[in-house]
Amino acid sequence: MSVLIVGSIALDTVKTPVEEHADLLGGSASYAALGASFFSPVKLVGVVGDDFPASEFEFWQSRDIDAAGVQRAAGKTFRWSGEYAWDMNTRQTKSVALNVFEHFRPELPSSYRTSDFVLLANIAPALQLHVLDQIEKPRFVIADTMDLWIETARGDLDTLLPRLDLLILNDSEAREMTTETSLIKAGRRIMAAGPRHVAIKKGEHGALLFGNNEFFSCGAYPLEDIHDPTGAGDTFAGGMAGYLAAQGGVPDFAQFRRAMIYGSVVASFNVEAFSLERLRTLTKEEIDERYQLFRAMSQFEVVV
Amino acid sequence: MSVLIVGSIALDTVKTPVEEHADLLGGSASYAALGASFFSPVKLVGVVGDDFPASEFEFWQSRDIDAAGVQRAAGKTFRWSGEYAWDMNTRQTKSVALNVFEHFRPELPSSYRTSDFVLLANIAPALQLHVLDQIEKPRFVIADTMDLWIETARGDLDTLLPRLDLLILNDSEAREMTTETSLIKAGRRIMAAGPRHVAIKKGEHGALLFGNNEFFSCGAYPLEDIHDPTGAGDTFAGGMAGYLAAQGGVPDFAQFRRAMIYGSVVASFNVEAFSLERLRTLTKEEIDERYQLFRAMSQFEVVV
Repeated sequence: MSVLIVGSIALDTVKTPVEEHADLLGGSASYAALGASFFSPVKLVGVVGDDFPASEFEFWQSRDIDAAGVQRAAGKTFRWSGEYAWDMNTRQTKSVALNVFEHFRPELPSSYRTSDFVLLANIAPALQLHVLDQIEKPRFVIADTMDLWIETARGDLDTLLPRLDLLILNDSEAREMTTETSLIKAGRRIMAAGPRHVAIKKGEHGALLFGNNEFFSCGAYPLEDIHDPTGAGDTFAGGMAGYLAAQGGVPDFAQFRRAMIYGSVVASFNVEAFSLERLRTLTKEEIDERYQLFRAMSQFEVVV
Repeated sequence: MSVLIVGSIALDTVKTPVEEHADLLGGSASYAALGASFFSPVKLVGVVGDDFPASEFEFWQSRDIDAAGVQRAAGKTFRWSGEYAWDMNTRQTKSVALNVFEHFRPELPSSYRTSDFVLLANIAPALQLHVLDQIEKPRFVIADTMDLWIETARGDLDTLLPRLDLLILNDSEAREMTTETSLIKAGRRIMAAGPRHVAIKKGEHGALLFGNNEFFSCGAYPLEDIHDPTGAGDTFAGGMAGYLAAQGGVPDFAQFRRAMIYGSVVASFNVEAFSLERLRTLTKEEIDERYQLFRAMSQFEVVV
């Protein structure tokens, strides 16, 4: 089953303590779509400017990412530039130029409107709602969000929450949203606001998943070297969405658990190189191998 | 098989944002011994003053904690007082009075010198070495340490490391010890300094275990309310040591994994009440039940 993904498509300039690269493919939808494509066909929704490389459209086509929903507008593509501190954890945004993204108000192609699985990657909640409203009978809806929307668009976000089967956010965002320091309490508070499941990402410390009287906790895949953390959260969301969509029906909690691990695995590959470079050559076999390793290093038995 | 445990025995005054209690049983050896006692008999080594309640000796006896190695000295028991910030994570030491602990230089009873399993709970590395030197043929040696010793007694600590089968420390201590920000790199660096295994505790984020070409990662048991974090690390070490000693021979890596979970489970109970109060009434059945719950919330399957 294919998954519809809407979000930003950007050209990024990223600086780490070791390297700097300009004009790299970025944006929440680019990362999420490629992350999902290892599991399911993708219908991509976004906007690019006339400076956007045609080669990316060819790449998407080669990965079964349908770009019929990607608008080509006159002007420049959304540009973001950021710099990571020495610990590779704290990031400073150096510049943002919305460009063609400023007036992005997508109208879905008719072939997209019957989508069952939807991932609203990280963009303004009003845009997420605008896209969701155009889908006839969405069966499973995931949204990712960020601190900016919690701070500036809380009303739209609160409207969106009850329509979600899964909300994904990180630990500091969950704390900010609920003013709870305990992530367990924060997860339950967000659940009470409407989404059927909540995934809280904790970076190098893994992730937590809350469901209706169900709970799952996993570590992160241990990495010695991180080259570019950009897009880790987006590829996590994409990997989860792609895996869940590939299962067919409404997923059970065991499928959710596996989706969390697949999301973590795809994200762990993503940060091994700049931009989407690692994911461009990644294979499903490599993903499955790391999934097995992940399992081997986090399982323990009950012995009476 | 019994486990010899040496460390501090204290009377603590602990203040949290909600409560304050004085003259509670505390100290690294008190917590570790009680944590271990759910799995193995304990031989306790420490020193107390003439103000120390006799009832605690009766309690130890009832839990198969041999106190023949606990010296009763003239003067006051070691006292510590601390206060937790609103997030229950940051702790400020308000006062320390070493009292009888200042000149503590234990001579082991002869019945202790043939011990196979040893837990050097958190005290100065010189004291840990002094005790270890009195044991004829230690088969399995665990040590816990802290930032203070990394900063002030690094030479002694470095001497101790190659004699350890397992070093336990927390994430910030591992980073401080190695000047590596990545815990994976930090763990490997510490391994290179001599211990056969390294466990890095990450508080609410769980723990990592490094062995020879082996690795294990686990979350923490999710708790909504923490009443007193004091002794969490000591009971974790005690639970691990007790479980490993109970297995008999030199443990394999599967037993290490289970020991990490048992340590986490015992620590999770410990923080549910002040001082050692929760552990005083805790049963092995409750521990086993939570172990199973822990497993249920962290397992995932491989489906091809």
